[in-house]
Amino acid sequence: MSEVLYYHHGRFQLAGGVLPNAITAYRTYGNPKNPCILFPTCYGGRLDNRGLMGQDYMIGEDKVLNPSKYYIVTVALFSNGESSSPSNTPAPYNGPHFPHVSYEDNIRAQHALLTKGLGIEKLFCVIGVSMGGQQAYHWAAMYPDFVERFVAICSAARTNDLSRAFQEGFKAAFVCSKDFDNGYYKTRPEIAMHAFSRAIGPWIYSQAWFAQKGYLHDGMVSSMENFMCGAWDAGFLPWDANDLLVLMRTWGQGDISLVNGGNGDLAQCLANVKAKGLIMPCKTDLFFPPEENIKEVASMRGNGRLALIDSIWGHMSEL
Amino acid sequence: MSEVLYYHHGRFQLAGGVLPNAITAYRTYGNPKNPCILFPTCYGGRLDNRGLMGQDYMIGEDKVLNPSKYYIVTVALFSNGESSSPSNTPAPYNGPHFPHVSYEDNIRAQHALLTKGLGIEKLFCVIGVSMGGQQAYHWAAMYPDFVERFVAICSAARTNDLSRAFQEGFKAAFVCSKDFDNGYYKTRPEIAMHAFSRAIGPWIYSQAWFAQKGYLHDGMVSSMENFMCGAWDAGFLPWDANDLLVLMRTWGQGDISLVNGGNGDLAQCLANVKAKGLIMPCKTDLFFPPEENIKEVASMRGNGRLALIDSIWGHMSEL
Repeated sequence: MSEVLYYHHGRFQLAGGVLPNAITAYRTYGNPKNPCILFPTCYGGRLDNRGLMGQDYMIGEDKVLNPSKYYIVTVALFSNGESSSPSNTPAPYNGPHFPHVSYEDNIRAQHALLTKGLGIEKLFCVIGVSMGGQQAYHWAAMYPDFVERFVAICSAARTNDLSRAFQEGFKAAFVCSKDFDNGYYKTRPEIAMHAFSRAIGPWIYSQAWFAQKGYLHDGMVSSMENFMCGAWDAGFLPWDANDLLVLMRTWGQGDISLVNGGNGDLAQCLANVKAKGLIMPCKTDLFFPPEENIKEVASMRGNGRLALIDSIWGHMSEL
Repeated sequence: MSEVLYYHHGRFQLAGGVLPNAITAYRTYGNPKNPCILFPTCYGGRLDNRGLMGQDYMIGEDKVLNPSKYYIVTVALFSNGESSSPSNTPAPYNGPHFPHVSYEDNIRAQHALLTKGLGIEKLFCVIGVSMGGQQAYHWAAMYPDFVERFVAICSAARTNDLSRAFQEGFKAAFVCSKDFDNGYYKTRPEIAMHAFSRAIGPWIYSQAWFAQKGYLHDGMVSSMENFMCGAWDAGFLPWDANDLLVLMRTWGQGDISLVNGGNGDLAQCLANVKAKGLIMPCKTDLFFPPEENIKEVASMRGNGRLALIDSIWGHMSEL
């Protein structure tokens, strides 16, 4: 596995404040002379594969992201625990004091990494799933002359109101928990993490997946309770609670029609996107329902193409 | 408004233990000589209309449940705060010591009320929404010669696995909260209730309802946050947390194919139902998706009729 590297921005403005030494973590695969593909992390994703999801599952000689054909850069969202995050930033911006981060901040930081750090002049493609896909949309909206194409899987250009509503439930799981201590916890708040994992878990699959007992994984798991403990509780437990909350806020406020001083007109914003976009919703995704992507593609005037994933895996069909 | 009345069972066996003096709360409307319609409460429902939902919204001269044509009996689920509940039962069965209650227990108690208390020999109809509808299914399965017809709105004969999964999230909201104190709270656990309301709220509507900003109620509500505070937090706050947990467990374990010593064969159980059933799912219900009801009606061999509610109100289309 290639090493995780760190790009130092120095003083960096975020939506909620200034970090004196902001850091973007990244990894590279293949020859820098090849066309560059950027693959940013999603919620729960880490470059070092210690998160819920790794970031090299699509990378390989036999995979879509082939490092003998492309120069692939994976990049960590602020607050994923690898880029600057509540959990790894020194006082006074540590823990609950870490500023709010927008997608726009993330994309500006990634642009600096690519252009100043790696000398990239053009992105062949940005590809992402879920929050990764939302970054792909933001790239296309913010740097129209830099991005040639983007792929957004189980994602959307604007976070919908249902997502904002259930995020309030996930947030309450932390804030109301016995051991969260308003983010000032001294030891890992395991009760808060448990509440959070049980609140978010059911949203990431579909009605049909549960009806077909997908959680039994063809007999490898003995019960739903065991699945919840193994897949959700254990998957989230290594994460820092403040990191997850900042990431959630980034997600909740995602809206490409507000970047670059936009006025909130999403259809207009999508019409202005120059990059070719491949939009891949899953039929049963509760986070990013296909109806929204279908509308988006209609606004993209020939630059957008929709490819529906016909799966009962809901938001998890991305993997 | 007619008075809330109380039927005293004396010593009564529940799935999780024995209550020395179990009580079923009920109200009646109209002339006892008319055909009897039973209308049991759902989750959050109270006979005295002090809950999230009242129990007389379908009752009136100009409504479906016309008290000049029918003798209407509304009846409260165990643990709704009116029938025997953690909140109103004396020690040693109060609070967290209250036994688990199954739907089967509730229906046995209602049968005793109707036959011994009110002298009813036949039910013209049982009608219910959500947990009320699940009671209607149970009535048809448990007392085939007593029930002529039943109507189940936004409901199902068996609680599905997705519901069991998200109920784990709702339960975690209580159990993990600062002030729940394992159910031994001395004052109202407002933090726990807030966490619970934010966890359950988003499930009761649909993607489309949020997309169309249904929560603004045509401009009567100014924001989603205000809606959540007004409709959910305020709606659940008067409830007792232990009551809600016992109710949730009743809901989670609902399955008519296990009553009367059944073997879990739902299709067979539905095939044996004698009563005519009108099954009314909402197209966008996340709790009880229409797919399940469609299968049920197919098993009911001519005794079942499906009427799909074409609404974006999700589980709330029942109201």
